[in-house]
Amino acid sequence: MAKIIESIPNISEGRNKEVVEACVDQIRNTKGATLLDYSSDPSHNRTVITYMGSPEAVEEASVKLVKKAAELIDLTKHEGEHPRMGAVDVMPFVPIKDASEEDCIALSKAVGKRIFEEAGVPVFLYEKSATAEHRTNLAAIRKGQFEGMGEKVKDPQWHPDFGTGIHKTAGVIAVGARPPLIAYNLNLNTDNLEMANEIAKEIRESSGGLPKVKAIGIMLEERNIAQVSINMTDYTVTSLFKVTEIVKEKAKERGALVIGSELIGLCPMKALIDVAEECLMIEDFNYKVQVIENHLL
Amino acid sequence: MAKIIESIPNISEGRNKEVVEACVDQIRNTKGATLLDYSSDPSHNRTVITYMGSPEAVEEASVKLVKKAAELIDLTKHEGEHPRMGAVDVMPFVPIKDASEEDCIALSKAVGKRIFEEAGVPVFLYEKSATAEHRTNLAAIRKGQFEGMGEKVKDPQWHPDFGTGIHKTAGVIAVGARPPLIAYNLNLNTDNLEMANEIAKEIRESSGGLPKVKAIGIMLEERNIAQVSINMTDYTVTSLFKVTEIVKEKAKERGALVIGSELIGLCPMKALIDVAEECLMIEDFNYKVQVIENHLL
Repeated sequence: MAKIIESIPNISEGRNKEVVEACVDQIRNTKGATLLDYSSDPSHNRTVITYMGSPEAVEEASVKLVKKAAELIDLTKHEGEHPRMGAVDVMPFVPIKDASEEDCIALSKAVGKRIFEEAGVPVFLYEKSATAEHRTNLAAIRKGQFEGMGEKVKDPQWHPDFGTGIHKTAGVIAVGARPPLIAYNLNLNTDNLEMANEIAKEIRESSGGLPKVKAIGIMLEERNIAQVSINMTDYTVTSLFKVTEIVKEKAKERGALVIGSELIGLCPMKALIDVAEECLMIEDFNYKVQVIENHLL
Repeated sequence: MAKIIESIPNISEGRNKEVVEACVDQIRNTKGATLLDYSSDPSHNRTVITYMGSPEAVEEASVKLVKKAAELIDLTKHEGEHPRMGAVDVMPFVPIKDASEEDCIALSKAVGKRIFEEAGVPVFLYEKSATAEHRTNLAAIRKGQFEGMGEKVKDPQWHPDFGTGIHKTAGVIAVGARPPLIAYNLNLNTDNLEMANEIAKEIRESSGGLPKVKAIGIMLEERNIAQVSINMTDYTVTSLFKVTEIVKEKAKERGALVIGSELIGLCPMKALIDVAEECLMIEDFNYKVQVIENHLL
């Protein structure tokens, strides 16, 4: 029953390879932490890093990463398409195995405290770790970005949870526990972007659709097809199967078809096995016992 | 990259609890072997035991199991509904993780040799381990059962692969490598057993249906519904999704519906994640990389 937690921080550097490698090395050089993936987006000037391990190893790797990023990344000189407020912009902790949401909240607080103490970067606790309702959402915390943050944190509503003010070059960082996020896109057999946008609007939570679903319509230019691009923020609330069935229906009503899907990056086994359970209508399925590999984990 | 192999032997005792426990203890007492399940059928007078571990641990556990069963189970006094030819009747080896079919074939030969040397029970290699085409199928080997085996093994076509003759009380045993077998049943919204039998006949390989599919119609008396009861002998050839879609179609043609399914016992993660991949039509899915848990196994 070894607890495994994953972290997927974004750092505000996606162009300078040396800086990115120096940051990623902090994960590589932490015993017990496993680097799963990292991917830079030059136009966003941003890199997402994925790693996992025991809570202790992830704590160590995460603090080391922020220290190195704060040393090498200067937000006063940062340009990119994506909004950002810190050298490490956001650092979520996700339970993978035998770890609870509470374990991830505890880890986020331990890491947040050390980030201010050891790197001097003030920390906001967000999502499940948030200390007030209005500080749950990352976009709300980040509003004003690095350039506006010095002023924003003077408002008592926006005092950081650890530290005060902002780090002059590394800004602030949001740290918190959240469920695994699944990036999942459904391709339509049409170049009608308006249709993808309409369907996206109907399924997303913010406009009254499915809980824990974010969605926009986008155009896949190289294939000349429209896509409903989805972020599933809690697959245990709205499943991959459910969202797919509903998008299929809504496409059909409009005379179109879902012709395929994309699963971006990593996905928990259970999110996919839940699809099998729903799709095959398996009665009395016992995930923990009946999936052989669960006896090896 | 630790290799894991599973074995699912059947022993010819399903009534005497002491004998069953003494046999199962051989698995419990082998270091590196994990007992996953065991289940006795009194009317069959037969117990299926499921365990897994490194090839070395599974070899040790398997040989110990046959020695104990040969000591305690006397086929000259055995009665039960299920055909049988040995104290341990059949012992398949299935690759679970990082192990190949070749690894399982090698293991079956090592175990088979030791079973004759250490327990004195002659061994047939079957399925992927078979030394001739006509010795592949378990039912063909077992034909004549314990009572006819002494005569049958005199035929050069049916000489055991290890040893000669039969063990006086423990008979003979079939040992071999095979893909994981999935027991999967589809429930219809009808009490029409004839319909379930018709569908079963159309989908099973032996009557020209889907490759690697065995099927019969049965009645679920307590629910008064008919069921298509399926053995999937290689889910990489015919998938759970495919067989389900086809049974749904064939039921629909007859005015009925599939209303649920049963997955019996253990199932490899990949068989279920393949369902998700097909059901969601995921493009360019990389099972090994994209399923987080694969990085922990």
